[in-house]
Amino acid sequence: MKPSYNVDVDVLRESPTRAVNRVVERLKREGKDVIMLSTGEPGIPPPLEVRLWLSEALKEDSMRLYSYTPSPGFLSLREAIVDDLKELGGVDVSVDQVVVATGGQATMFSTLATILSPGDEVILMDPTYFGYWNLLSYFKAEPKPIVASLDKGFQPGVEAIKESIVKGKTRAIIMVSPDNPTGRLLDFDVARSLAEIAVDYGLWIVYDEPYKTLIYEGEHVYMYNLAPENTISLNAFSKDPGIPGWRLGYIYGPAWVMKKIALASEAITYNPPSVAQHLVTVYLRNRELRRRHIEYAKRIYMERRDVMVEEVSKIEGAKYVKPGGAMFLMVDMKEVLEPLKVDCTLLAERLLREKLVALLPGEFFGKSTKTFIRLSFPTETPERIREGIRRLGELLEEMGKESLGKKESSLFEASL
Amino acid sequence: MKPSYNVDVDVLRESPTRAVNRVVERLKREGKDVIMLSTGEPGIPPPLEVRLWLSEALKEDSMRLYSYTPSPGFLSLREAIVDDLKELGGVDVSVDQVVVATGGQATMFSTLATILSPGDEVILMDPTYFGYWNLLSYFKAEPKPIVASLDKGFQPGVEAIKESIVKGKTRAIIMVSPDNPTGRLLDFDVARSLAEIAVDYGLWIVYDEPYKTLIYEGEHVYMYNLAPENTISLNAFSKDPGIPGWRLGYIYGPAWVMKKIALASEAITYNPPSVAQHLVTVYLRNRELRRRHIEYAKRIYMERRDVMVEEVSKIEGAKYVKPGGAMFLMVDMKEVLEPLKVDCTLLAERLLREKLVALLPGEFFGKSTKTFIRLSFPTETPERIREGIRRLGELLEEMGKESLGKKESSLFEASL
Repeated sequence: MKPSYNVDVDVLRESPTRAVNRVVERLKREGKDVIMLSTGEPGIPPPLEVRLWLSEALKEDSMRLYSYTPSPGFLSLREAIVDDLKELGGVDVSVDQVVVATGGQATMFSTLATILSPGDEVILMDPTYFGYWNLLSYFKAEPKPIVASLDKGFQPGVEAIKESIVKGKTRAIIMVSPDNPTGRLLDFDVARSLAEIAVDYGLWIVYDEPYKTLIYEGEHVYMYNLAPENTISLNAFSKDPGIPGWRLGYIYGPAWVMKKIALASEAITYNPPSVAQHLVTVYLRNRELRRRHIEYAKRIYMERRDVMVEEVSKIEGAKYVKPGGAMFLMVDMKEVLEPLKVDCTLLAERLLREKLVALLPGEFFGKSTKTFIRLSFPTETPERIREGIRRLGELLEEMGKESLGKKESSLFEASL
Repeated sequence: MKPSYNVDVDVLRESPTRAVNRVVERLKREGKDVIMLSTGEPGIPPPLEVRLWLSEALKEDSMRLYSYTPSPGFLSLREAIVDDLKELGGVDVSVDQVVVATGGQATMFSTLATILSPGDEVILMDPTYFGYWNLLSYFKAEPKPIVASLDKGFQPGVEAIKESIVKGKTRAIIMVSPDNPTGRLLDFDVARSLAEIAVDYGLWIVYDEPYKTLIYEGEHVYMYNLAPENTISLNAFSKDPGIPGWRLGYIYGPAWVMKKIALASEAITYNPPSVAQHLVTVYLRNRELRRRHIEYAKRIYMERRDVMVEEVSKIEGAKYVKPGGAMFLMVDMKEVLEPLKVDCTLLAERLLREKLVALLPGEFFGKSTKTFIRLSFPTETPERIREGIRRLGELLEEMGKESLGKKESSLFEASL
């Protein structure tokens, strides 16, 4: 007899980046070279100094690098994070408010597992990081999307948020800043209003800030400073110092809830990966190196962003807001694609298959961005970014001719 | 207003190893040297050759080591696992039946999240690995413990298992082999009976085999070979090649359920740590090195086991079965402790505080082992194991005198 399973897991969906990556893998195996404008992945590895430290440590014939660690992470790493937060944003937390976790996804999972009950309503932006839609379904919470539109610079509408709160049902507001997929930095005034709302209504602000050190213009708002009793902050070392595959992140918030989140974190992975913890401790403890690496990464990514913006600005009808942080340019292609009778998903598919350029269609991030594409700029060199956008323009031109061809043909048919 | 949380997480408990480790950390900070007989942690690092490979790769100025990976793990690693299973146990699985996950705990979490629904009954051994009690509570499943007693060599009783099955309610049997905490290898005949039961009643066998290559006498049973449609096998690279802190394991089973488990795995950690995947791929692909390392680890651990058994045999009244595999010696201290009016938890506490030796009381593993202690042998050298057990004997002697003192004193009081 075939055993059965829990149908609740059927709400889980594969990440769209992963679906794209599988096609990319196939193309690569066929010897094809794909320009990757689809992933939120840093283009530069961690600083050589910390890599060399680890390279030496691996030669030691001891268990130091390999042992289990405390489930909320090494005390030394948590202390380094406390100091880092203090220096970066004047954030004042103690070690028992910091839980190191197994990457950004695990920070989301452990936090939502702890704060959400079935039937809870959760306010989040449309568009937002696709992972949240998935997890809210899994925890049987109801997403309450608020459209953050391009013409308002993707800033959340405070009034709309207030109106969508249902007392006793709304549990949390999820906010990503600098934002994925839009690159928008949360305005300080908006952040202050959100903090007031959270305090007034007893809501959590789940503040997702994995890109907080990648700011090109403007300043990052540390939400915890505005609502310390109501903010749970999610962080990752994926983008800075650049170890996405190694899976390391951390969460901070009120001590009482962090204690519970720590147990949820232990339940899913027992402890965050020790090797990543060692590497990041060395990185954070070397303050000068850390400052230098952030500046270096920002300089490189900003140059890539500027090249991308310059190239995209040549596509007539493409609308965007220059991103102040993070890794993405969110482009509204409505005016470009409507005359072609093509949607963004088809565009992305054809671009990958015919022109070997990967990007993500906007529909993965929300209903309001169905006519958008998300381009990421930190992975590829400026030259390859130029080439990628050039190929996008080329495909659009070809599509224009096809649609002209289609029209002529249908005119011809009509004249028969 | 203070925000609230989901009280369901309050069933989660800290691992007892962790609780002990926190005391150990404190003692270490006081400059004290603790003999660790409490953790299931290998005493030897991965082979030098694979560490040197990684040491070199870290010098490369590319993202190769750091990038995200496919959520079920690199294809090359999954292929290496398929070949490894074939060679080790004649197990015949395809790549789409293998999901690499973020350590043993994550294999348990993703699997139970996928197969269990609230109210399901799950048969497991008493004693068993403490992590299972915790997770079953979290998934609102009811544990149905079957006592596996020392005088039967900790073998599960097939009849008792059969009798405890409730049609439509029992969903799974959890079986660990080689066992934690007892070191027992599942008998082939028992395994065959369990396989028949699973097939007849449509149950899952969640077969937890992280110690499968650490066999000192006897042979490891590959349950999947006996019930391929009903077995989900959980595996870890924590013990072999010895990277517990790095968090890497894998799951194999029927393709249809592995697809679902892969999505659960992606939901909790996005992907298994890339650096561990690279290291283990090199290890598994170097077949000769792999065989040599297993033999080397077994020789070292077996020597430590034998020393431990020899020393424990000197404690009058201590009962045990020599473990055929894994890392633990489970000792019944009933006859020793009853006259002293001391339970195992107090013994463990005093041993740690007064004699600086860490072990785990049996009550963490089940109700039937309240008079047991679990000693682990792979972490410390033979000399330190001898010294640890000697101190245990010393403490017991001191306790004997105290209890004599107590008796005299109470006799004295009575005569007043």
